Amino acid sequence: MKSYFPNVPRIEYAGPRSKDPLTFKHYNPSLKVGGKAMRDHLRFAAAYWHVMRNGLSDPFGSPTALMPWDDGSDSLDNALHRIPVFFEFLDKCQIDFYCFHDRDVSPEGDTLDVAHANLARVTKELKAHQRASGKKLLWGTACLFAHPRFAQGAATSPSVDVFAYAASQVRHALEATHALGGKGYVFWGGREGYATLLNTDLKREQAHLAELLHLAVKHAKQIGFKGQLYIEPKPREPSTHQYDSDAAACLNFLREHDLLDHFKLNLETNHATLAGHSMEHEMEVAIAAGALGSVDANRGDTLLGWDTDQFPTDIYLTTQIMLRILRMGGLTTGGLNFDAKRRRESHEPIDLFYAHIGGMDAFARGLQIADAILRDGRLDEALRQRYRTWDTVIGRKIEKRKMSLVELDEYARGIRSPKLESGRQEMLENLINEYIR
Amino acid sequence: MKSYFPNVPRIEYAGPRSKDPLTFKHYNPSLKVGGKAMRDHLRFAAAYWHVMRNGLSDPFGSPTALMPWDDGSDSLDNALHRIPVFFEFLDKCQIDFYCFHDRDVSPEGDTLDVAHANLARVTKELKAHQRASGKKLLWGTACLFAHPRFAQGAATSPSVDVFAYAASQVRHALEATHALGGKGYVFWGGREGYATLLNTDLKREQAHLAELLHLAVKHAKQIGFKGQLYIEPKPREPSTHQYDSDAAACLNFLREHDLLDHFKLNLETNHATLAGHSMEHEMEVAIAAGALGSVDANRGDTLLGWDTDQFPTDIYLTTQIMLRILRMGGLTTGGLNFDAKRRRESHEPIDLFYAHIGGMDAFARGLQIADAILRDGRLDEALRQRYRTWDTVIGRKIEKRKMSLVELDEYARGIRSPKLESGRQEMLENLINEYIR
Amino acid sequence: MKSYFPNVPRIEYAGPRSKDPLTFKHYNPSLKVGGKAMRDHLRFAAAYWHVMRNGLSDPFGSPTALMPWDDGSDSLDNALHRIPVFFEFLDKCQIDFYCFHDRDVSPEGDTLDVAHANLARVTKELKAHQRASGKKLLWGTACLFAHPRFAQGAATSPSVDVFAYAASQVRHALEATHALGGKGYVFWGGREGYATLLNTDLKREQAHLAELLHLAVKHAKQIGFKGQLYIEPKPREPSTHQYDSDAAACLNFLREHDLLDHFKLNLETNHATLAGHSMEHEMEVAIAAGALGSVDANRGDTLLGWDTDQFPTDIYLTTQIMLRILRMGGLTTGGLNFDAKRRRESHEPIDLFYAHIGGMDAFARGLQIADAILRDGRLDEALRQRYRTWDTVIGRKIEKRKMSLVELDEYARGIRSPKLESGRQEMLENLINEYIR
Amino acid sequence: MKSYFPNVPRIEYAGPRSKDPLTFKHYNPSLKVGGKAMRDHLRFAAAYWHVMRNGLSDPFGSPTALMPWDDGSDSLDNALHRIPVFFEFLDKCQIDFYCFHDRDVSPEGDTLDVAHANLARVTKELKAHQRASGKKLLWGTACLFAHPRFAQGAATSPSVDVFAYAASQVRHALEATHALGGKGYVFWGGREGYATLLNTDLKREQAHLAELLHLAVKHAKQIGFKGQLYIEPKPREPSTHQYDSDAAACLNFLREHDLLDHFKLNLETNHATLAGHSMEHEMEVAIAAGALGSVDANRGDTLLGWDTDQFPTDIYLTTQIMLRILRMGGLTTGGLNFDAKRRRESHEPIDLFYAHIGGMDAFARGLQIADAILRDGRLDEALRQRYRTWDTVIGRKIEKRKMSLVELDEYARGIRSPKLESGRQEMLENLINEYIR
Repeated sequence: MKSYFPNVPRIEYAGPRSKDPLTFKHYNPSLKVGGKAMRDHLRFAAAYWHVMRNGLSDPFGSPTALMPWDDGSDSLDNALHRIPVFFEFLDKCQIDFYCFHDRDVSPEGDTLDVAHANLARVTKELKAHQRASGKKLLWGTACLFAHPRFAQGAATSPSVDVFAYAASQVRHALEATHALGGKGYVFWGGREGYATLLNTDLKREQAHLAELLHLAVKHAKQIGFKGQLYIEPKPREPSTHQYDSDAAACLNFLREHDLLDHFKLNLETNHATLAGHSMEHEMEVAIAAGALGSVDANRGDTLLGWDTDQFPTDIYLTTQIMLRILRMGGLTTGGLNFDAKRRRESHEPIDLFYAHIGGMDAFARGLQIADAILRDGRLDEALRQRYRTWDTVIGRKIEKRKMSLVELDEYARGIRSPKLESGRQEMLENLINEYIR
Repeated sequence: MKSYFPNVPRIEYAGPRSKDPLTFKHYNPSLKVGGKAMRDHLRFAAAYWHVMRNGLSDPFGSPTALMPWDDGSDSLDNALHRIPVFFEFLDKCQIDFYCFHDRDVSPEGDTLDVAHANLARVTKELKAHQRASGKKLLWGTACLFAHPRFAQGAATSPSVDVFAYAASQVRHALEATHALGGKGYVFWGGREGYATLLNTDLKREQAHLAELLHLAVKHAKQIGFKGQLYIEPKPREPSTHQYDSDAAACLNFLREHDLLDHFKLNLETNHATLAGHSMEHEMEVAIAAGALGSVDANRGDTLLGWDTDQFPTDIYLTTQIMLRILRMGGLTTGGLNFDAKRRRESHEPIDLFYAHIGGMDAFARGLQIADAILRDGRLDEALRQRYRTWDTVIGRKIEKRKMSLVELDEYARGIRSPKLESGRQEMLENLINEYIR
Repeated sequence: MKSYFPNVPRIEYAGPRSKDPLTFKHYNPSLKVGGKAMRDHLRFAAAYWHVMRNGLSDPFGSPTALMPWDDGSDSLDNALHRIPVFFEFLDKCQIDFYCFHDRDVSPEGDTLDVAHANLARVTKELKAHQRASGKKLLWGTACLFAHPRFAQGAATSPSVDVFAYAASQVRHALEATHALGGKGYVFWGGREGYATLLNTDLKREQAHLAELLHLAVKHAKQIGFKGQLYIEPKPREPSTHQYDSDAAACLNFLREHDLLDHFKLNLETNHATLAGHSMEHEMEVAIAAGALGSVDANRGDTLLGWDTDQFPTDIYLTTQIMLRILRMGGLTTGGLNFDAKRRRESHEPIDLFYAHIGGMDAFARGLQIADAILRDGRLDEALRQRYRTWDTVIGRKIEKRKMSLVELDEYARGIRSPKLESGRQEMLENLINEYIR
Repeated sequence: MKSYFPNVPRIEYAGPRSKDPLTFKHYNPSLKVGGKAMRDHLRFAAAYWHVMRNGLSDPFGSPTALMPWDDGSDSLDNALHRIPVFFEFLDKCQIDFYCFHDRDVSPEGDTLDVAHANLARVTKELKAHQRASGKKLLWGTACLFAHPRFAQGAATSPSVDVFAYAASQVRHALEATHALGGKGYVFWGGREGYATLLNTDLKREQAHLAELLHLAVKHAKQIGFKGQLYIEPKPREPSTHQYDSDAAACLNFLREHDLLDHFKLNLETNHATLAGHSMEHEMEVAIAAGALGSVDANRGDTLLGWDTDQFPTDIYLTTQIMLRILRMGGLTTGGLNFDAKRRRESHEPIDLFYAHIGGMDAFARGLQIADAILRDGRLDEALRQRYRTWDTVIGRKIEKRKMSLVELDEYARGIRSPKLESGRQEMLENLINEYIR
């Protein structure tokens, strides 16, 4: 079988002292951490769009990525030809899952009928490769943002015909995902928002968006798709404002439109920081609502104001993410999808490997560190201690909603002065550093 | 009667050609705009804390404001002495409403009992001045953020005793507001959030916050307070993160905890921009949920990262705010509260007048411009035209949820290609400029 | 002669009451303001790249702009064919100047020789159109950022061959600018910076950049080009950091490398705000150094973190810009170049007209307002008064550097306490609003 | 001798496996790294203002810090009484240096004469404690920002008398620093900038600032002070804009006013990020100009828009800082000054220890990691390789300025196409992670 990355061996675990950049120093797929193999904790996925389709252009420059396997055309043949390249990549990187947009894997064509036929053909091919390799689909999605017809929204377009086109695409992307045994299906609404409020009916647009989601819920049920549905928050870029701007905005929207039972959130670090939140914050908000579904594993540059989609190599970040995933009992349908791209200057195919190795090793370390923190117990104990006055008679009574304002006033007037203990942030930060090794 | 601003006359409307900085050039209180007097459209309020208590210190410097009427002490006498000064200010500025925090008008004292007694005494005095002057209370609130005991939260404190103290203060602030005929009562949770997630139980803290709001709802009912309850979004500062971070986060919280029937939002421009949103955006979100209650009228400096609370002098901003207020049928219980302060360099008492005059004139212009835009109708017509395909048979059918994904797919495949018209943002921006005079 | 905008008449001044969106409401080219015609104050230029070449793609979507005159190819024929379209646009918009990048007007070709020949051919055609129409070239520049070869810098590339390519392009772009009677030549270094410091020798790269500028200075002299050379500050985007990050960084660089006598700055509002500065600030910094040359007239959205290049329709902004231009005695070689693009949703050719009309009218108003402010004199008088203690004996002595620290200490100890007057920011902001009509 | 921290032992090195939060896990003062003791590499300093005077108030709340040794007064006695507390802190933390502002150590008093006398008295006491303990003064400075008289600037005040007051303070602070054997003297101009350009003469104000610096240079020479003079960049907060906004702005200012021979920069991480730069960037800019003098060791929260002055516990950050310090041959007069404060919630005295221990350990790790990176050599080798084409005949010729634009054009036309290698950012980021242990 032809190799498209002939100079890249299968990436193997070689331990932290390895100086070979084409080895894992920390990711040891079958190593058990807390009784579960690393690969099952982490459920890594590669993003088809970044690995196979991202030419690394930017708003001021043309694509730089070398893709010797790609003839540069939008043909179905070229699309089919990319598939074995991608599966070779997955295999060599030891990544078990992948994610795709309909239009990344399959060309648009001149009509919707052609587009649907193309997608069906590509789906068949992907299925064959999944079967042969054991790789799995983490989630699929429809690209409702790149084509000019979606410039003013897909579900939230002022044109009802555009809404119908979006619905048509969602139907087929959902069916393709189902056919491939996808564990989930994602809605990211990059054009579901506005460029200016001067020409926007926000309430009506949001109702249309909700309707598309309801339609998808019903259709999923009809075709027997049992995967998890997700929405993915992002505040801006490309639109000036996107309705699903952060975890709280998504939850508010889902609650308002009776969709919270059907959707979970797919959170991304760079989207969190663009919204002015830490990734930990977004995770806590989602977890508190029982709605954390999956993670787009990347990082941003908080000194820049756009989505840089860098690979997550910061161990502090991966530790915080894994700490929360472990505490919630692990990912079920979701995974860690590398929605991350190389820098435009890293234009050689081998950079794809360096990039994913770095992200996988960083998450493997994050997992081990988080596990050590939880086993050690000092962090959680500090948290428990901090709230201990709420575990008293009076605290419980308030939590059970058995006290009135007047009773609390009387209680308060009987206290000389509430005593506050230090929040100990610095000590706790030092504690985290103990585990960073 | 002694005057505390002897060199400042009552500020009167003198028309746009006046060069006297101590006149209104646009605010003409009794002038009818669309059949309603300006004063009733705008319902201006002065913030007791900024006018009377803000020394204009900043994190790197001491207070600069000259307050010849204030003896600098925390005594009850001094508190009582400030009241006529404030009412002289309201009178000379022709501002009909005011807002206060319990601890701004009245000293804390050594015990809660003293604090409550002080507040009761001050309330009596305020009431007398209201009666004599005809001025009214727009809203009251409890200061649950300045005292060290609230450093780690009030309702969301890890200490149950602090929660009780907060409850005690809310009870009495609510009762004082009721006694003064307040049109509303505000919760701003500057410490209801966290400094670090390392020591925070977000879900439990939010439940405690919700409980305090429920307690207030019940108590208001009990004492017969019919004013509107508000929460006020702000994302950060002082806390690293505050739970009520923006309009969507507040609505999500209110929905989750069954509080949406009881609360509206008090929106502030500078809080909106700190959250990465325009004020127009926050207003649209609140209005779409039927939850816009009142407005804190100020502006920020979007190149700075903190709450600058500047006076709102940008006519574009005041136009956008008034456009939305007019479209929603006007403010009812709410008003335009100048939660705004002079710059630290503007330390003379007369600067208080310049500052408020500027804000009032800018809103008077915004009102007139917004009224002209709505009467002219071109902007609203452009909006209507933009969504006209939704007012067709197929559009209505979707909005009534009578179409399935499969039917929409079929419909879409029958369209050759959706036609998209220009969004015309530039033309609409030019249109707005036509009215800026 | 064929018209490419058959439905657009020549845009004429129709006065502020005109409701026709295809008229100027304020820009009256020959109207004298302070003894000089508006067109000579404003020296408007259109940017060839935005008008003719910007398809309005963004990082998440394909081009939307309709360009019926363009065959979509990179051929020389197509390039030549665009020229009359552009000149029709200039004529109908009454814009006297234009600006271009070599690669916007002329295709790259397979070799440098072809590229140079193409540029020469296009230059000839532009010259003919300039002669026929009376339109003039404000400035030219070389595009040293779009091609993949410049991904890691042009003058600052790690590859010496890329430096040579950049030098070659600069030579020919400079000569084309000279041939077209260009009033200036701009260097914008979008790739002159770094993606990461891990792989960057900042000092060496900056020396290379300085050398390219020195080479251009020498070559300009050699060919007799008397136009002004400019550098254009921008902090980031596309690069993580660009060396010419703001006005101060540019001046520092020019001073260090003995280039300050040869270069002025071309300032852009959106670049200023991306650097965390107001446009007024950047202008003051440049003017204080005698180095303000020209202006890229646009605006950004300070709630977004990237270069939105919107049309400048905010009258406050245009007033502040024109105030500074008038105070410095007007633009000489420079002008107001609309480095601004329509929103991606405004994809029809007519939107180009709405957009430029809006910008031109806003600057015409800014000019008139600034002129009124200066004629009125109250703002400048307030400034003079504020510093009046420096116009005393002691102030002058310090300014002439005739006082020592010891003498000043003695002087200070003789003062009871320095008296500070209010900075009156609010009153001055109100004063500006008086002129906004 | 009385102990003010009776429950805190002297902090000793106990190795990375220690679980005692009151030990160093990495800072081992006498351990040699590359032939030099850790303490000599790191030259830690404590900031008198944060340790002894920071009550941890914020713009929305009162001080929380417990300071049982402080009587809360502004008396000279209280000032003298704080000194042994501070030296006990230095001793127990094993911090060799300290820094102060005149007004932190010594009360202002009613007149300048009193203020100077107070400072003289305190200086005597500090000197005695230095002698007894062996502790040293890293740098001194005058507080020219807290007093209301400096609200509109110190050297850049519109009032010449305020300039004289500032000069007077600088004289005495400089002399105190000299008397205490200070290694340097810092100018941070928190009020040297503007609140609004409407009332500001930027050029004149900057000239006044330059004059104050010249006066200090002359006076330092006169009194025989051989320490290094520094300016400290910060873009904003408290002022809307400060003239010394970042390293490049400072260098531009120093060059323009012929001060570059006399000043180096004192760089702070949080000031760098507020200016939109990484600390590494600011260090590279300063080092390239031969002007890096000293470091204020802290970190900010890039999701917040103000100076959070947190303790530097991020090992990536400390590694990058130490990498640059090692490459430049180490600090000479400068050091690592903890211009960092505990969070407001960490109000107990022991939190001061946790905070400093965390910062010191993080820098000790950064030093060891940076040393390992440099000894290993792979990072520097990658850098050398990247620029190797510049080390050829043609590269050298350009760098020696022996090529013209025409010659480069000819050279370029002879190249088929420049070959660009990957920038390898991801691989280099992975490489850094190898050393993070």
